[in-house]
Amino acid sequence: MRVPRWQNWWRRVSIDGVNRPTIRDIAKAAGISPGAASFALNDRDGVSEETRAKVKRIADEMGWTRNVAAVALSARQARAVGLVIARSEESFTGERFFMQFIAGVERILSARSRNLVLRFATSVEEEVDTYRQWWAEHRVDGVILTDPRDDDPRPTLLADLQLPGVVVGAQSQSTLPTLRVNDGAAMERLVDHFADLGHRRLAHVSGSPDLLHTQRRREAFEKRCEERGVVALPPSSTDFSEESGRAATWALISSQEPPTGIIFDNEVLVFGGVVAIVEASLSIPDQVAIATFEDTPMCRIVRPQITAMVRDPAELGRHAAEALLDAIDGRPVSGRTEPTMELIVRGSTDPEA
Amino acid sequence: MRVPRWQNWWRRVSIDGVNRPTIRDIAKAAGISPGAASFALNDRDGVSEETRAKVKRIADEMGWTRNVAAVALSARQARAVGLVIARSEESFTGERFFMQFIAGVERILSARSRNLVLRFATSVEEEVDTYRQWWAEHRVDGVILTDPRDDDPRPTLLADLQLPGVVVGAQSQSTLPTLRVNDGAAMERLVDHFADLGHRRLAHVSGSPDLLHTQRRREAFEKRCEERGVVALPPSSTDFSEESGRAATWALISSQEPPTGIIFDNEVLVFGGVVAIVEASLSIPDQVAIATFEDTPMCRIVRPQITAMVRDPAELGRHAAEALLDAIDGRPVSGRTEPTMELIVRGSTDPEA
Repeated sequence: MRVPRWQNWWRRVSIDGVNRPTIRDIAKAAGISPGAASFALNDRDGVSEETRAKVKRIADEMGWTRNVAAVALSARQARAVGLVIARSEESFTGERFFMQFIAGVERILSARSRNLVLRFATSVEEEVDTYRQWWAEHRVDGVILTDPRDDDPRPTLLADLQLPGVVVGAQSQSTLPTLRVNDGAAMERLVDHFADLGHRRLAHVSGSPDLLHTQRRREAFEKRCEERGVVALPPSSTDFSEESGRAATWALISSQEPPTGIIFDNEVLVFGGVVAIVEASLSIPDQVAIATFEDTPMCRIVRPQITAMVRDPAELGRHAAEALLDAIDGRPVSGRTEPTMELIVRGSTDPEA
Repeated sequence: MRVPRWQNWWRRVSIDGVNRPTIRDIAKAAGISPGAASFALNDRDGVSEETRAKVKRIADEMGWTRNVAAVALSARQARAVGLVIARSEESFTGERFFMQFIAGVERILSARSRNLVLRFATSVEEEVDTYRQWWAEHRVDGVILTDPRDDDPRPTLLADLQLPGVVVGAQSQSTLPTLRVNDGAAMERLVDHFADLGHRRLAHVSGSPDLLHTQRRREAFEKRCEERGVVALPPSSTDFSEESGRAATWALISSQEPPTGIIFDNEVLVFGGVVAIVEASLSIPDQVAIATFEDTPMCRIVRPQITAMVRDPAELGRHAAEALLDAIDGRPVSGRTEPTMELIVRGSTDPEA
């Protein structure tokens, strides 16, 4: 694809094409280049103060108006939304959830000419410091909070700063608008699937136990196992790394009374689990059946294919961005619950599938 | 993990702990709450103009200085770096490259308290409009350009705007500091591998032909095939979607004279290719051998495992961020070339591997 020569359009200057006269007209009237006029009007270095004053006077006389973005800037709106991701680099890059989620957020923001300011944090302290910094800098008009946890300091902080926010995930008790994810129902569906196939000893390889979504899944796992007369093995918590998923699975399959079925919390963990099972030369699903939250292409390409819960993180991202923009613009925002995930049964649990 | 109660630290106010006196001290002197003092000093709504003036006067008297971030703001430094990703949502979310790259960029930026401003674009025009908008808004101090292409309008635009930038990828002729990726050498290595195994008809399932890295790989593919006496089938260009990789592979393996080996440009494409080959009930590597750029966990978990070039996109991201911060701060920046990728031979090309 050939693109137009830049000369033909960057000097167009109006970002959204609604402004008249153009900087080109002002430059002509001032007898300087459009580039210099642009620098003057945008308060950039590169022109003398004398020229800047002259250009601004001419622009005033010609009825030139700033573009929407500049107006927003002067109105102290950041026209940006913040997202802090508090996961390890390995966990983040191994998991498609955040990538798809960000793509969904971006779809809404880009369409409304808003920016996404992204930061990684290695602790909750760092995450909260980042919000305070953004607030002090007027850098964002609101933030999207993910991974709600116990004693979460973030909603209270945002309330104190009067910084709009939405929470994504789990059934949190937050005072902020929340996009709830029904992790409990999804886990019950998974346990039922194993129980229906005759399994009587199940394990759950989960993420960090301080995350609410891990807690909700764990509670549902234990409750449903009890209801179905299935033994629920003790929790196998991980740090969401492939290696921790592999180690947890090794421990399970080499124990005295191994599970006949294992449920993994995401694609990184199930990947580590498959590696452990292959290393142990156990057959899937005859000796150990496996299923995972977060369906991915990998689940379809391995043999046997892996049973998985299906969701759409991009949709969650779109909803989060829409809710946050509503909150920023002062429109009422009600929480909503993500549709219950769907179970796709494949060969890793059912040879007939 | 339990986190400290927020009350104990958000009122600390200093972002980096070097400022004395604190807003708490000023608030005490003014007889108002630390929250109100913070709002007044940070020019946020929520306090009367009278209170704001009083608080500012007291702060002056006490020798209060703004934190680093606020000083930077007033000095017209954005303390942020911009990245526009001009790929489809499907292509972006299917590929780990950008996720790992962003994680690498973030590692450097977070350590230096800089922000990443992220935007998705669906065209080069939109991408360039974004840079112009960011520039007009003083939103970023510089940008990272990926996916260099023919007649790329971006380096010239940045030069005109005096906005620092670095280019990542391919052997571009850009005037900007460039992190070059030696795609040609990597492709030669792949062709040699197939030729050494006795292949005489090879295909290359590539990305969009207007991207420089696609062009460099294609040129190297055709040149090396000729040097090794191997037939190079006509280009199979795709839009980087899994479906396009599947369709291109179907066309190749169902043709009159199918290739005995196929090289894929990334993990999304090779995944589509594997689906097509499995659907056609062809055996890998006996009937068709495959290899890919961009090693991923998927390459290790399928059977046979997939031969792949290994690189570290996070390292590329770290280098890009470092080079850009150098450019922003006026330090000299020289281009550099990414270490040549390494070939990991697996069962998809060599049954002995």
